Order: sequence, then structure tokens, then C-alpha cells
Amino acid sequence: MDIKDLTPLETRKLIREGKITAPTSGLCPGYAQANLVVLPKELAYDFLLFTQRNPRPCPVLEVSDAGSRTLRYIAEDCDIAKDIPRYRVYRNGVLADECEDVEKYWRDDLVSFLIGCSFSFESALLEAGVPVRQIEEGRNVPMYKTGIACAPAGAFHGNMVVSMRPMTPDQAIRASVITAQMPRVHGAPIHIGDPAAIGIKDLYHPEFGEMVTIKPGEVPVFWPCGVTPQNVVMDSKPEFVITHAPGHMLITDIKNVDLRN
Amino acid sequence: MDIKDLTPLETRKLIREGKITAPTSGLCPGYAQANLVVLPKELAYDFLLFTQRNPRPCPVLEVSDAGSRTLRYIAEDCDIAKDIPRYRVYRNGVLADECEDVEKYWRDDLVSFLIGCSFSFESALLEAGVPVRQIEEGRNVPMYKTGIACAPAGAFHGNMVVSMRPMTPDQAIRASVITAQMPRVHGAPIHIGDPAAIGIKDLYHPEFGEMVTIKPGEVPVFWPCGVTPQNVVMDSKPEFVITHAPGHMLITDIKNVDLRN
Repeated sequence: MDIKDLTPLETRKLIREGKITAPTSGLCPGYAQANLVVLPKELAYDFLLFTQRNPRPCPVLEVSDAGSRTLRYIAEDCDIAKDIPRYRVYRNGVLADECEDVEKYWRDDLVSFLIGCSFSFESALLEAGVPVRQIEEGRNVPMYKTGIACAPAGAFHGNMVVSMRPMTPDQAIRASVITAQMPRVHGAPIHIGDPAAIGIKDLYHPEFGEMVTIKPGEVPVFWPCGVTPQNVVMDSKPEFVITHAPGHMLITDIKNVDLRN
Repeated sequence: MDIKDLTPLETRKLIREGKITAPTSGLCPGYAQANLVVLPKELAYDFLLFTQRNPRPCPVLEVSDAGSRTLRYIAEDCDIAKDIPRYRVYRNGVLADECEDVEKYWRDDLVSFLIGCSFSFESALLEAGVPVRQIEEGRNVPMYKTGIACAPAGAFHGNMVVSMRPMTPDQAIRASVITAQMPRVHGAPIHIGDPAAIGIKDLYHPEFGEMVTIKPGEVPVFWPCGVTPQNVVMDSKPEFVITHAPGHMLITDIKNVDLRN
């Protein structure tokens, strides 16, 4: 049996049992994967307000009830403390542990935020014949800090992080139309063309991920990125945060096509 | 000079000075008007989470900082306690006062929620040649309690309220396509055709607003309604809430066309 034929629920159970520990890219094709940020309740209002004010980089798919390790809407029979293959635990903004489950760290005051991911719109781009270079080249998508200030909320403020995919101008138009229909996974691009116009220092040296080839006749196309909320949370150095480890996402029961407007 | 030629800022100043006290329907054509719910900070997290879980009936345009009477994004130089022509004050779910400003009730722990309103999509319908019956007949839109449960959040739970506009099936299709592009003002219809299918008791006796004529060959089309959040808040009988009085909205600086996706 091919692991890719498993349902999201079956896949989460294998992850829970420690039988899948690798990055989740390619698992459960067609289903949305989500970023995780877990914060104490005390910080949850400011963070939820930050996401409300910044829906482009921070499209929230679900917020758990305080203390609950289950979800109500996007993943049936889920254990947030175990169903992601790899977690990171931060104390006062410093990485304190990286581990395969966070049961021992769980507290009754924790709130989990599941945030949409551009993986979901990449399958729509590929279906439409728009290339996704980092998939072609087997790399992580290049991501950049920009000069675009997010709207602040309470303890949280900072600049937007963007992801970049190179394509021809014609493909960029098609990609804009397609992703504009998917606001719950970042929506339309935030910029096409000039990296300096949005405060990117060096296109060839992304702050996160890996550089990909830009072919002659292609322009860089930039989307708001789900690394933004993690980055903003870390900047505020909260006493305690849990996140997924990069590339190790929560596989949800939501189909990517259901994230279209 | 015609009052309709004033900018939103000029109009809000006349309202602030007590020179406009009437319902805001028809003022500042082309600009979005917003529903108001003001709650103590203690309840704000649960309410913000309720809106996150129920974006169709509760599309939040802006949330103020706690205690602040100004807004950052949708209305320049605004005084939330004075810039609406008529307010309602509720204590423990009971109407305690109706007044032209709420300065004397203001507290440092209050958070204001500005929620999108279907007025914004009605102008798009009219432009597309889709009739809006209650405008033709000079009435308030009919609104109904449904059997559709909203997703609960903390202290808040309850059923969705919908508004109804009668139109031909062909117009209903056009209206669906147009309003689907405006998720920040309720988006696409929630149902077309059979009131009983969504738990409406009597189509001809709406719980809020007024009945309008349904012509032969027309079907009722139902949209999630901004009365839902007020209704849900009232049901939980919070110690203190301020809302706008029905029809007396906040006029924002946001153009309706900018609420399209």
C-alpha cells in the first residue's frame, strides 16, 4: 500500500504513533496542510486580533478552545500535541526543544492556531499549467523579510514575510486570478516584479528557505507567507510558544478545492 | 449643497455635532456602512473567536484597541462614542437606554467591533440589474431566525439570522456570483428557495424588518445577516453592551468596490 493513498485521519494516526516523522510534503495530496502556533491564553487575544488585522499573511483556519488538544472543524479525532511529526518549543523567544510530540509540555491554558499554507494554492497553480519552480527543483520555497509593516495588535507587531515563485508575466496574471480565489491560503500576490519595491534586500539570498532558478523572461512573484505570524510571535519573545518544525505540518481533512471562494 | 455629496468624514462630523440624527440609509453612496457591537474586554476574546468561526454572518471590518474611541483603518478621525446617529445600551441583555451619543457610558475596558453590512452588496446587485425589493418598496429588509447553528465560542452560541431578497432564479444565479466576490460583507447566499429547509417558521412573518412582495416566478434568496452577532450577544445576557440602533450605522471611509475580492 502506498502511504499517499491513506486518508488524512489514517495519516495523522501514523504520525501520532511515531511511524511517520518526516516532513509532510506530498502526503495526502489534495488536502490542506496547516501551520501551527500554540500560545498561552493570556496572549491569545492579541494574537487573534493580529490575525484579524492581517488576514493576508495570517489566514486562520481554526482556533482551538483553550486547553483543548482536539479540533472541532478541520481535523477529526485529532491530538494537536501528537499529530504533527515534529514540533519546536520556544521559551522567551529562544528554541528550547525540538521533539516528535509535545504531550509533556501541554498546559491547560494553551490555545492552538492553525494557519493556512501556500501548499494549498500550489496544486491549483500546477493544475492550471503554472510552474512551481521549487517543486520542480526539489527545494524549499524562497522566503524574504519585507519592509511591509503588518498592522500591529497588542503585544504583536512586525513586518510581512513573503514567499517567491518565478514565472512569466503571462503566468503571473493567471496565478493572480487563481490565488485571488483562495483568500484562506494567502490569496493573490502582494507584488510582482521589483523586490526592492517591497523592501527585499537581496533576491538571491532569501532569509528563509532556498533560492530557486529564475529563467530569462521570468519575473519574481511574491505572496504573503505563513512564516509571518511565527516570525512576529518570536520577535515579541513570549514566555512560551509551541510551533510545528518547518515542513512538518498538520494534515487537515479540508480539501484544497474547498478553500476556493 | 446636497447632504449626499459630503465625504464620510464630513458626514461623521455632522453626526458627531448632533446635526444628523436620522437613519444612515442613502448617506455617502458608494461607501460601506458598518454594524457596531461594543463589549467589555473580558468578553472580547470569546466574541472575536465567535466571529472567526462564523465569518459568513460576522464579517469583521475592524476591531478597536481596548478603551480606544478611535479606529485605525476604516474611518479616519472617528469618535466611536459619537459618530453614529443613534445607539442602544444594554445591561444584562435588557435595553437600558437609547441615545445620540454614548460618551457618558464609555469605559476604559471597552472594545468596539465594526461588522460588515449587506448594504454594501446591494449597490453591486443594483448595478448588475438585480432588483432589491425592499429598496424598491421603501422598507427594511426582512430578516429571519433560522435553524442553522453558528459555531459556538466560549460564552457565545446561537443560530444564524438571515436576510431575504426575492428574485427570479436567473437573477439569483447572478446575485450569487456577484456576492460571492464580497466575503467581507456576507458573501454568497446561504440558501435559495425553501425557507423550511433552513428552519424558517413563516416566510411571511419575518422576526426582524418588514415583509416585501414576492412576485410570481420569484424565489426567496437568503444571505447570512449582520443581525446574527447582536442576537447572539444579547442571548448571552452580558453585563454591558453598546450597539448602533437599527438602521443607524457607522459610515466608513471604505468604498464598497474595495470590499470585492
